[in-house]
Amino acid sequence: MNMAYWIWYPGDWEVWLHEKISVQREMRGAIYPPFWRLDRHYSSVIYKYKYVIDQPEMIDIVADGTFAAFLDGRDNYRTNQGQLRLPAGEHELTITVYNRVNVPAIYVSGETVFSNDQWQVSCYDQNWHTVGNWKKEFNTSEKMPSLFRLPRKLEEPITVDRRSDSIFIDFGKEMFGYLQLEKVKGEGELTIYYGESVEEAEDKENCILVDKIAFSDDEESMMLEKSRAFRYVQIVPSEKIIEIGNVHLQYEYLPVENRSYFQSSDSLLNQIWETSLYTLHLNTREFFYDGIKRDRWVWSGDAYQSFLMDYYSFFDCDVVKRTLTALRGKDPVVMHINTILDYSLYWFIGIYDYYMYSGDLEFVKSQYDRMISLMDFCLARRNENSMMEGIENDWVFVDWADIDNRGEVSTIQILLCRSLQTMALVAELLEDEERKIFYENEAEMLKDKIMETFWDEEKGGLIHHRVNNQRNEKITKYPNIFALSFGYFTDLQKEKVKQQVMLNPQVQAIKTPYMRFFELAALCEVGEHSFVLDEISAYWGGMLKLGATTFWEEYDPQLSGKDHLKMYDMPYGKSLCHAWGASPIYLIGKYFLGVRPLSPGYHTFAVEPHLGGLKWFKGTIPIGQGEVEIHMNHEQIKVRTTSGAGILKYEKDGKPFEVTIPNDSTWLHVNLV
Amino acid sequence: MNMAYWIWYPGDWEVWLHEKISVQREMRGAIYPPFWRLDRHYSSVIYKYKYVIDQPEMIDIVADGTFAAFLDGRDNYRTNQGQLRLPAGEHELTITVYNRVNVPAIYVSGETVFSNDQWQVSCYDQNWHTVGNWKKEFNTSEKMPSLFRLPRKLEEPITVDRRSDSIFIDFGKEMFGYLQLEKVKGEGELTIYYGESVEEAEDKENCILVDKIAFSDDEESMMLEKSRAFRYVQIVPSEKIIEIGNVHLQYEYLPVENRSYFQSSDSLLNQIWETSLYTLHLNTREFFYDGIKRDRWVWSGDAYQSFLMDYYSFFDCDVVKRTLTALRGKDPVVMHINTILDYSLYWFIGIYDYYMYSGDLEFVKSQYDRMISLMDFCLARRNENSMMEGIENDWVFVDWADIDNRGEVSTIQILLCRSLQTMALVAELLEDEERKIFYENEAEMLKDKIMETFWDEEKGGLIHHRVNNQRNEKITKYPNIFALSFGYFTDLQKEKVKQQVMLNPQVQAIKTPYMRFFELAALCEVGEHSFVLDEISAYWGGMLKLGATTFWEEYDPQLSGKDHLKMYDMPYGKSLCHAWGASPIYLIGKYFLGVRPLSPGYHTFAVEPHLGGLKWFKGTIPIGQGEVEIHMNHEQIKVRTTSGAGILKYEKDGKPFEVTIPNDSTWLHVNLV
Repeated sequence: MNMAYWIWYPGDWEVWLHEKISVQREMRGAIYPPFWRLDRHYSSVIYKYKYVIDQPEMIDIVADGTFAAFLDGRDNYRTNQGQLRLPAGEHELTITVYNRVNVPAIYVSGETVFSNDQWQVSCYDQNWHTVGNWKKEFNTSEKMPSLFRLPRKLEEPITVDRRSDSIFIDFGKEMFGYLQLEKVKGEGELTIYYGESVEEAEDKENCILVDKIAFSDDEESMMLEKSRAFRYVQIVPSEKIIEIGNVHLQYEYLPVENRSYFQSSDSLLNQIWETSLYTLHLNTREFFYDGIKRDRWVWSGDAYQSFLMDYYSFFDCDVVKRTLTALRGKDPVVMHINTILDYSLYWFIGIYDYYMYSGDLEFVKSQYDRMISLMDFCLARRNENSMMEGIENDWVFVDWADIDNRGEVSTIQILLCRSLQTMALVAELLEDEERKIFYENEAEMLKDKIMETFWDEEKGGLIHHRVNNQRNEKITKYPNIFALSFGYFTDLQKEKVKQQVMLNPQVQAIKTPYMRFFELAALCEVGEHSFVLDEISAYWGGMLKLGATTFWEEYDPQLSGKDHLKMYDMPYGKSLCHAWGASPIYLIGKYFLGVRPLSPGYHTFAVEPHLGGLKWFKGTIPIGQGEVEIHMNHEQIKVRTTSGAGILKYEKDGKPFEVTIPNDSTWLHVNLV
Repeated sequence: MNMAYWIWYPGDWEVWLHEKISVQREMRGAIYPPFWRLDRHYSSVIYKYKYVIDQPEMIDIVADGTFAAFLDGRDNYRTNQGQLRLPAGEHELTITVYNRVNVPAIYVSGETVFSNDQWQVSCYDQNWHTVGNWKKEFNTSEKMPSLFRLPRKLEEPITVDRRSDSIFIDFGKEMFGYLQLEKVKGEGELTIYYGESVEEAEDKENCILVDKIAFSDDEESMMLEKSRAFRYVQIVPSEKIIEIGNVHLQYEYLPVENRSYFQSSDSLLNQIWETSLYTLHLNTREFFYDGIKRDRWVWSGDAYQSFLMDYYSFFDCDVVKRTLTALRGKDPVVMHINTILDYSLYWFIGIYDYYMYSGDLEFVKSQYDRMISLMDFCLARRNENSMMEGIENDWVFVDWADIDNRGEVSTIQILLCRSLQTMALVAELLEDEERKIFYENEAEMLKDKIMETFWDEEKGGLIHHRVNNQRNEKITKYPNIFALSFGYFTDLQKEKVKQQVMLNPQVQAIKTPYMRFFELAALCEVGEHSFVLDEISAYWGGMLKLGATTFWEEYDPQLSGKDHLKMYDMPYGKSLCHAWGASPIYLIGKYFLGVRPLSPGYHTFAVEPHLGGLKWFKGTIPIGQGEVEIHMNHEQIKVRTTSGAGILKYEKDGKPFEVTIPNDSTWLHVNLV
């Protein structure tokens, strides 16, 4: 309680940080800013706090910006002194701060008066909000939010090949950070070619990332200014550079703890799990990135999956909140998040999931206004059938695949339906009865319309889309995946969809790890764990066999050699460390270890483990503050947990059973034979 | 045509400059930021330009920020080189620029390809706009818009009084700029107390502006960092400061030319005219300020009057455009301009006037979107009678006076009606027929409702307001002033209003030069020139008699001594150099010299001179590029002009006459006897 921390206009630190990191993408030295509007922090804000004290007290005010403090609205009696004597009694302390470069945050500490979440702030739009903060991180006057930097540690290359006209270095696996060069002698220029593959680092003309560093004199040691993602580096000196000493890496990372654990009888699967974790960790930074080499952007669809992976590994809520806040940005909403229709919708669903896993009502509340305005924007873009289609410059993405997304795409309507359900849930939490009923009704009507419009009884699934009220009879997996995951099918429909769509080789296959995430999750939902395990082994195992140290943006087993590196019309366009490549974390955690919340914040939860063809596994999954540990083989399940009301679900002799798990860390043993 | 100039996202340079200057207000060293939302420039924008060239050509690209250029949407082929070779043929050149501190502007120059108003720009909200520019000012690569500073010139004090413990300096009249100190010897601190009056500069505890400058060593010459408004300065050295040399002022000003001229038989009036011009000039800076000592803010109501004064003096359209753009800021509109209901409405009317005086259709077009969104905001805040009242935290200002502005204030409805008429006019100019009809109808209906609701036949005027559908029978001058000025009365009503309200000493008198502006203009509209002249002489002459070198924020002839300096609960709270104090410029130009446009841009105009009790006058008024000169005494009117279709209107023997004025600078003589 009696602890001061930095406070700011809610969301502004995240928006400010997002603006900064969004412009780090480069294409061979040239900036490549995102093609959506970058929002900015308010430069001029006003804080207020009502205090009651018996004795006068001194407070220290530290502001990131130019500030003035005054009491009881006495606008003419301002001070810019860092120490202020507060008179006893009940008074209102007001502090204005201006900073056009950094977020105008403040840190106030006295005997009893502190900057904390009891303060309110306004950007002078006549609305007052509870302040934003990150109390775990910014809780001393020195830890100013604008000074935030990820920590670094030194990493050494595994091989250094000093060739006649260059140095070629291998760091052994995908890395992220700042090269550090020792003892550069002479004058001239070093050109540094980076590669996620040997081929890329060796291709001076086509590698994506290049740095040029000029030296006018000998340098004992110097760290490059810009962070880069790579495994290999080729350093080419100009003529008068006569020596280059050791080359290291200042590896930059978000200090999150991996709170999960998994081991099984299948060593390839264990390696896939480890590589997934490393892939996710590299992309878990200020925000969840899509990939660390190329975009380095925050994409809502990509982030949505990272959230779910995070709940089964780091369970770091802060990075989820930062990412959701940054993605939403500020009003007015004039386009979809990342310009992509589906990506606006994933944002809502991401909040639903976040609440289920974390139980963090405070954050959900803080987003309500922005949820309403984004939903208003979406609803205003519906057509005469109350369905959303891509209008104007909306990008209807769904997946990187040969699909036609014109008109009413069924997947979009399903995502909208789930978004409306999220709105209803949050409205209920905030006791906004009127909106709750509105969103519930909209969701219900839309769900009926989806089934009516897109369900094909004969084909046993939802068709892909309808254009100008004309059904296109093509079935794709996408809508069926989401309807399965959200529980929108009857049991009869489920079975049809499983056989006639999901397991039907005639239906167009999915090629991105992005959509495989949803596909394999849906297959688990209908009990196809063994099938999914085989798919994981073949698909992710396939990348490992090609030497992957992190998982890729896209993987097509049909390709060979350098063709694996191509994408977006560029020889090395593909990202070889892409967050959405890490989905085995989620699939294993949720569907093999079988842990999922039944009520917000894991107050109640289910453990429904499936061997899915494995001989045995053991593992741990974080559930909020606590954790649950599961061991399973064909004879036995062992499970224990530290918190919550957990229920173990399992089958024995073809019959379902449920047992309550004690939450005192003692083992529950269940025999399966 | 073939000339390059700096281009930017429309409005962003103005918004950026406004953000900067808005936070210069200080209260005894502490920042006093405006209490409305400060908008900001977009930090990431994208420019595009389609060119057709026969021969390849080289262009130079200079950007204020980090940029990348690419051709024909080939996003993967970017360059950050300042020189780019454009291939021949038809191509689209795209440039992205990022700058979080300054406006991301660009300057491109080649043989035939230049950055100019043929380029388009987007903030990545999927809308493209014609770029903003100030081609007169920023037309070389070196003149980067972010480097914009007003020029300075050296001014010397008229008296320097070296007292035992301080130096007391008089600059002879109100000044604005940066103090410059020569040969400061010793170490310690100088405290500088500024005053618009002797009393203020001598009152260390209560003067508004104070600077403290620390010296650790002798200084040959140093200019203070912050600009200040003052006439007097008291410099108090700490003990170990042993010498202070000469003190000068780096006077800062906007280099506008006074294009008007006025001389009359009344030397007091001539002095009022000169002092008004100086007052206006001091407040005409990056934008039109309210006053230079205290707020230094851009207030819409104050600026509205400055626009009109400007048309009769400098005729500087750039400062009008900058001010209108800055005032409007960005979407979303969540509060009134400056938080004041009437100030939103003056913004619309200011655009109407600007178009009438300048004929600048291009600017009006550029504001149309923002006009619509502000009007949407206003119309959505009407009550069930389709009238606007102050809701939530709206400030209904009208005037600094003892008035009750609750409920439906008639003045507000009249301003809204005029704003709707402005919208209709602009909609018509932009051939937006649907909106034109809508706004016209709304204006017509509102006008009828105003007369129906507020006209009091017996009292012969409009009553002040109605609260909860209850008429308050009090008559004030405000609504009657505006209805007169906008021509909303019948001739019969006019006569009643003139006698029963405007010239009626029982009706509450107006005490601010702000509202006197409108009051005296309205009195001129009904032919009361002599009365107005007497008022000007008494009121503004009264300030001159008290030693004013510029006109004040408020003047009450009843007060005496230091009481004149008080305002806002502060002994020196009153601004002694306030733009709205300069209204004689407008009154004399429009109603005595009698010049006014009849169609946009002075294509046609009227000259209707009135001696109003003077023996003679002569004067010049700018009319766009040209000017009109008028000499008048009881015997004769002489008028000549350089442009436009002017009509001289005058009376002889009680009968009205109209004569066309030749526009070849030859004199038209008319005998009045």
